[in-house]
Amino acid sequence: MSSAEQIAKQAKDSFDASQLLDAHERHRALVALKDALTAAKADILQANKQDIEDARAQVAAGKMSSSLLKRLDLESSPSKYDDMLQGILDVDSLPDPTGQVTYARTLDEGLELHRVTCPIGVLLVIFEARPEVIVNITALAIKSGNAAILKGGKESNNTQAVMTKVIQGALATTALPPAYIQTVSTRNEIASLLSQDRYIDLVIPRGSNSLVRSIQNDSRIPVMGHADGLCAVFVDETAVEKKAINVVVDSKTTYTAACNSAETLLIHEKLLPTLWPKLASSLLAANIALRCDPATLSALSSDPSISSLPSFSSLVTPSTAEDYDTEFLELILAVKAVPSCGAAIAHINNHSSHHTDSIVTEDDANARAFCRGIDSAGVYVNASTRFADGFRYGFGTEVGVSTGKTHARGPVGLEGLVIYKYQVRSTAAEGHGTAVFGTGAGQRPFLHTPLPLGDSPF
Amino acid sequence: MSSAEQIAKQAKDSFDASQLLDAHERHRALVALKDALTAAKADILQANKQDIEDARAQVAAGKMSSSLLKRLDLESSPSKYDDMLQGILDVDSLPDPTGQVTYARTLDEGLELHRVTCPIGVLLVIFEARPEVIVNITALAIKSGNAAILKGGKESNNTQAVMTKVIQGALATTALPPAYIQTVSTRNEIASLLSQDRYIDLVIPRGSNSLVRSIQNDSRIPVMGHADGLCAVFVDETAVEKKAINVVVDSKTTYTAACNSAETLLIHEKLLPTLWPKLASSLLAANIALRCDPATLSALSSDPSISSLPSFSSLVTPSTAEDYDTEFLELILAVKAVPSCGAAIAHINNHSSHHTDSIVTEDDANARAFCRGIDSAGVYVNASTRFADGFRYGFGTEVGVSTGKTHARGPVGLEGLVIYKYQVRSTAAEGHGTAVFGTGAGQRPFLHTPLPLGDSPF
Repeated sequence: MSSAEQIAKQAKDSFDASQLLDAHERHRALVALKDALTAAKADILQANKQDIEDARAQVAAGKMSSSLLKRLDLESSPSKYDDMLQGILDVDSLPDPTGQVTYARTLDEGLELHRVTCPIGVLLVIFEARPEVIVNITALAIKSGNAAILKGGKESNNTQAVMTKVIQGALATTALPPAYIQTVSTRNEIASLLSQDRYIDLVIPRGSNSLVRSIQNDSRIPVMGHADGLCAVFVDETAVEKKAINVVVDSKTTYTAACNSAETLLIHEKLLPTLWPKLASSLLAANIALRCDPATLSALSSDPSISSLPSFSSLVTPSTAEDYDTEFLELILAVKAVPSCGAAIAHINNHSSHHTDSIVTEDDANARAFCRGIDSAGVYVNASTRFADGFRYGFGTEVGVSTGKTHARGPVGLEGLVIYKYQVRSTAAEGHGTAVFGTGAGQRPFLHTPLPLGDSPF
Repeated sequence: MSSAEQIAKQAKDSFDASQLLDAHERHRALVALKDALTAAKADILQANKQDIEDARAQVAAGKMSSSLLKRLDLESSPSKYDDMLQGILDVDSLPDPTGQVTYARTLDEGLELHRVTCPIGVLLVIFEARPEVIVNITALAIKSGNAAILKGGKESNNTQAVMTKVIQGALATTALPPAYIQTVSTRNEIASLLSQDRYIDLVIPRGSNSLVRSIQNDSRIPVMGHADGLCAVFVDETAVEKKAINVVVDSKTTYTAACNSAETLLIHEKLLPTLWPKLASSLLAANIALRCDPATLSALSSDPSISSLPSFSSLVTPSTAEDYDTEFLELILAVKAVPSCGAAIAHINNHSSHHTDSIVTEDDANARAFCRGIDSAGVYVNASTRFADGFRYGFGTEVGVSTGKTHARGPVGLEGLVIYKYQVRSTAAEGHGTAVFGTGAGQRPFLHTPLPLGDSPF
């Protein structure tokens, strides 16, 4: 048995064993986790300092970006470590996503069917850099009842090693099996783990596009997440100027590296001589480079209030075809004029990454067409694409954002980490066979009478 | 563009266009479909006769089973064709699975979030033999708002060709795009279609294990279905005789070729001298071959009431290790003694296909441990595994049974053919950006006040 298979099988065995425990044990494990991480703060920060030192050398040698270095640092803000600990308690306080009856019927006298939510099984979570993600994911896995195998970035190896020891020490004081949460550290192990579809039920990659895409290509295990976040805003013919400026500028500028930032602006061609130069002026003031198609470019060139701006020649350039398929994650926006709301919908369905797209409009029919016609996880009216986030949606926590179209879509909370099973229970004296149901002589029909939903009675 | 890519792109374009139509148009399409198939009954049965004739030659040459021939025949029972038509109306009468709000919050004054169910997109459905499946799947796809590409077995090529013409003729009289439902006929096209993950959102294979398994291996597109149906019944120490006999015999004998039939019987070792011979006697009376481990075999050999039966020597044999991993789909049952409920749970989690498993017991604690501990789509107490079926569960119709652990699990009804999107709508005078939310000066928190669920207001 390979080391990857062993890790995966241990996770599966731990999951199976954990299914017999009450949800209360998971609460106790979260408290133990928080206490152990509180006690080990100095050790963990010490290990983190070592990672930071190694990373500084990499940055100096030009082999690492300084933003990656910052993400590694557990003391990059004064409250970062304590926020991480508070996050465990926040997850603990959320409603239990398991044990919920979501469909229930009396099938026959003495025969009941309940569909009850339950954990998915074994999660493989792959992420880069930020070491606090280990704690975050551990808390989510425990709360949702899933076992987890975690693979962080090699840049945080020291921090990860100490954290793992602390987490497993905490688990050892609880009823959860010690291999319920495991960490692996080399990239080689990932390839082998991705082939353990017998034991691993779901892969959650959190990281760069290329990481996610390679995992999607390599594994038969279902993958939840998103490679691209190519979001678009369409400013419709009836758009009000201040709404357009507010929504577009917020979508583009509040955090350019986020997956829910806008990368493409579509503008109704009737607005080219009117609203467009004003919107462009706000974007240029925010230092956004505009890559324009001929129509939007010529509208700016011929408007002296724009073409006379010092930023015009440096920030306004013609777009290429690829610009409309690019997730810039920078202060760059691809701009294009469209003749109608229908053309905007068609462009977005063909070019966006089905993450989140927004229309600015006063026309209810177009708003409705946009919401129905756009095949994306988020469809917004007069609101910034940056709202696409589990915390903003009120989920309390977020596992990630899914651009897939099965299981979970958009920002994913604890609900996305559970599935369900069907329980059928007979209390009849002879138990229940199926042969007595039907339309023949001596047979009877099913009742299918609804039963109460909510907490599972069993 | 390859022919497969063309088919897939047409399906996606049809899906996109159909999203702007009201649900009422889908109802009208179902009625048109039923009317067209009623009018074309003679033509379709004529084409089906040709398929049957070709198949008879194959059967005579030993190249096809007679059961396959029977499944091909649209007149194998007098009401089969009319039942197929009635099935369209039944699907039409089910509640619309789309347009349902399942989560809704006021995020801020004038800013609402709705999670609304919507179709998944383009389905690729691959099945064998039975031509009425074309009509069945077409109805499910239309009802759920998904476009579909259908690939039936080559044995029903003639029937499929005429049916396709009738279905597309019916669609042409409705608002749905004509390429909303397409059929393909050669196996070559399937391999190319499975690589069209840009356009196809879900593959549903319905057929033999080998068909399903090869599709699961070959495609990056999510696959919903099951390869194996290896169901087990565990007869626990406290089991009542008549319940055990009723549940085990019904699970094994009512339709041996079904995926929800039992293939493995686990029996508590304390019952070997008592209940087991009586249960074995009932199974032998039903002509079931028993492949027994040493303990269960020796219990029967040493019981003269069993070992003296004429069927004993022909039907009772020692089992091999593979028998406990085999989906027989025949009058064969693998039997094994276990020392405890925990051992039964461990055996089932390691050997079953996570489809449906049942315990016969009077012990509530063991019933509960079994339901929690068994990682299968169906976990039953004192009930036959044969209840695992969408109609029996009260779904009205069934797309198939899923042994996956994401999206949909167990029997899948229309609910399994939808996902959701998040709609965010602002009615504020300036629209809504995100920058004003937070804990800083001049910022405000989110409200997250619940809003009504149910039919979408938009």
